[in-house]
Amino acid sequence: MTAQPIVELLHPSGLHDHDPVFTLHEHGKMEIASTVKLADRDDLAAAYTPGVARICLAIADDPELLSDYTWVGGCVAVITDGSSVLGLGDIGPAAAMPVMEGKAILLKEFGGVNAVPLCLDTTDVDEFVDTVVNLGPSFGGINLEDIAAPRCFEIERRLQERLGIPVFHDDQHGTAIVALAALVNALEVTRRQVLDTTVVISGAGAAGVAIAKILYEAGVGDIRVVDRQGVIHRDRGELPPHKLEVAQLTNRNHVTGDLAAALKGADAFIGVSGGTVSERALAGMADDAIIFGLANPDPEVHPDVARRYATVVATGRSDFPNQINNVLAFPGMFRGMLDVQATRCTIEMKRAAADALAALVAEPVPERIIPGAFEPGVAEAIAESVKPVAIAQGHVRS
Amino acid sequence: MTAQPIVELLHPSGLHDHDPVFTLHEHGKMEIASTVKLADRDDLAAAYTPGVARICLAIADDPELLSDYTWVGGCVAVITDGSSVLGLGDIGPAAAMPVMEGKAILLKEFGGVNAVPLCLDTTDVDEFVDTVVNLGPSFGGINLEDIAAPRCFEIERRLQERLGIPVFHDDQHGTAIVALAALVNALEVTRRQVLDTTVVISGAGAAGVAIAKILYEAGVGDIRVVDRQGVIHRDRGELPPHKLEVAQLTNRNHVTGDLAAALKGADAFIGVSGGTVSERALAGMADDAIIFGLANPDPEVHPDVARRYATVVATGRSDFPNQINNVLAFPGMFRGMLDVQATRCTIEMKRAAADALAALVAEPVPERIIPGAFEPGVAEAIAESVKPVAIAQGHVRS
Repeated sequence: MTAQPIVELLHPSGLHDHDPVFTLHEHGKMEIASTVKLADRDDLAAAYTPGVARICLAIADDPELLSDYTWVGGCVAVITDGSSVLGLGDIGPAAAMPVMEGKAILLKEFGGVNAVPLCLDTTDVDEFVDTVVNLGPSFGGINLEDIAAPRCFEIERRLQERLGIPVFHDDQHGTAIVALAALVNALEVTRRQVLDTTVVISGAGAAGVAIAKILYEAGVGDIRVVDRQGVIHRDRGELPPHKLEVAQLTNRNHVTGDLAAALKGADAFIGVSGGTVSERALAGMADDAIIFGLANPDPEVHPDVARRYATVVATGRSDFPNQINNVLAFPGMFRGMLDVQATRCTIEMKRAAADALAALVAEPVPERIIPGAFEPGVAEAIAESVKPVAIAQGHVRS
Repeated sequence: MTAQPIVELLHPSGLHDHDPVFTLHEHGKMEIASTVKLADRDDLAAAYTPGVARICLAIADDPELLSDYTWVGGCVAVITDGSSVLGLGDIGPAAAMPVMEGKAILLKEFGGVNAVPLCLDTTDVDEFVDTVVNLGPSFGGINLEDIAAPRCFEIERRLQERLGIPVFHDDQHGTAIVALAALVNALEVTRRQVLDTTVVISGAGAAGVAIAKILYEAGVGDIRVVDRQGVIHRDRGELPPHKLEVAQLTNRNHVTGDLAAALKGADAFIGVSGGTVSERALAGMADDAIIFGLANPDPEVHPDVARRYATVVATGRSDFPNQINNVLAFPGMFRGMLDVQATRCTIEMKRAAADALAALVAEPVPERIIPGAFEPGVAEAIAESVKPVAIAQGHVRS
């Protein structure tokens, strides 16, 4: 059974002119706008020289004023190296730009956050990190995007160590926040307790690792992460650092073997692998199972098939119920972090965001465990949930 | 005699709230705006996933499409290290941001160019260059700003070597273009021929060096550049590379000594030093002299004094006639270069811009040798003059 893509991915070359998506993208999707008047020389003398010098001197005297008198405090960089773009893989920085622009306008539309798309012409971790650190004074936050695992983990860790602004890799944490929110409500629908639940994650890339960590933080009873070599466990040997960390947090019962072995008796399946899962394997899950097939555009299992084996089904797609869409998370995360001038992004802030997102669905039912992408108030609710955590943790500029 | 600043530079601290310039600058002067609709899931599917993947694939297949289907082709980075901001000196990257934002909104307002202000946290030439090269795929042009001499020269040269987009250091070339345009018309007013003219430049920083080069390119008879040690000449010894280059292009008659010695019999004085020039020295100039005192906010000689010794007087200020204002040049330069997807910025393009700017004053008179900053059509005229030169030189993307 094959999913029906909303928009055909393949397109005969030379027919761009007749494709509304190409028409929409002509000259890009965003622009810079001045928020001040520049109509005469008095305007110029205030917004530029000589008046602007007073603002410069004030910031030189007190660096905290940077966020009061420039756009920096409300501005995020959306940064990629183009190494893992959507499901397209390593298409390079230039070809990644349309996605970064899309992300930037979503940040604005949903979170009121100004965002600048930056595509870096390097895949060297040191160079990438140094480049972004050098850009630090220009932004109030860094959204990393579409960077291949495992280097995305090290890039994020080193940037957060060196920069005094929040660093958030959306492919990891956006997905993890929304998946946790959906899971919380799916557990309510199926009358489970978080502590008693076993969740299987298929995929140990950016999303899989981040989901495992946030589920652990949320107290999920057991987590089994499955990669191409099977279930990850401490004794598997030759594990790279990010999988070793996963091994230390997961698989309490030392399950070994393939995805089917992992799914035996499991309560929930979260697919972020881009692969598939067999009906035979799904049939081994517990009654009233939960299945999230999040690969895009083709879920690991088509929702119509998943429903035969599960009570609650979610995908990454907008044409089925329960869309696990990162846009539910990242605009509110950044809005909240920027509002309090957060100095870093912590897992506790992400958990608070997930809880706030789950709480937006007052009475979860199988077909509705998560708000729709266009429901009003989502970003605001997440922002409000993140702020007190950042303040309580002391991760805000004094 | 002291110039009257339009806006007081010094300001009692703690009174920011009552200062309209601070009020104007609250949260900065610019924002990002989406140019596409994002109202429902069909919009999202076209501007973001899954539709956007088609644009990514098209660009991966043909990199030339980057400028057709993203904002990159119309977008410039305004980049500084904060090492030489206005007349304030080395105030660092954060404190430089208000000027970069100002530059960005001027590019938009006057040239229709999108511009992103970037303040880099490094003053190391290698790191600066590597950082900007890594940002290359994100922009259609680079405007360098407020970077201290002499490293501004090496940064610009190396960036232009490594990037396939135009690199333009406005403190050098914006000033040089407008100064040359003003000089051309001042020579017409005073009935001089370019080839027979001797021009003295006070200051061998970014602006002084660039003005010397463009005047040489324009065929000015002789040029004498004066720094703190006096007139630059080939035998002065221990000259750094940028002054050695100046020495090779200038001072045909091997004048030595101080500014007064340089000015003896000279036709024109261009001050870009931030220092002063004595009346005694000005008195030694030729009859019908030309005096441009471009230091801001205090010209090297007050215009009222200069008029005693010169027929044509210009300053950098808007409250006297003949304002030499970079905003006359950089928006049109970038508009033109972006329109033809120029791959570099050459001195011939800058000369064309200066000629176009001079030509906008149909009948120059002493009080009007250059258009005002807000006269319509300036950026367009410059853009139109730059395009054919870029094309004729083959410095455009095929």
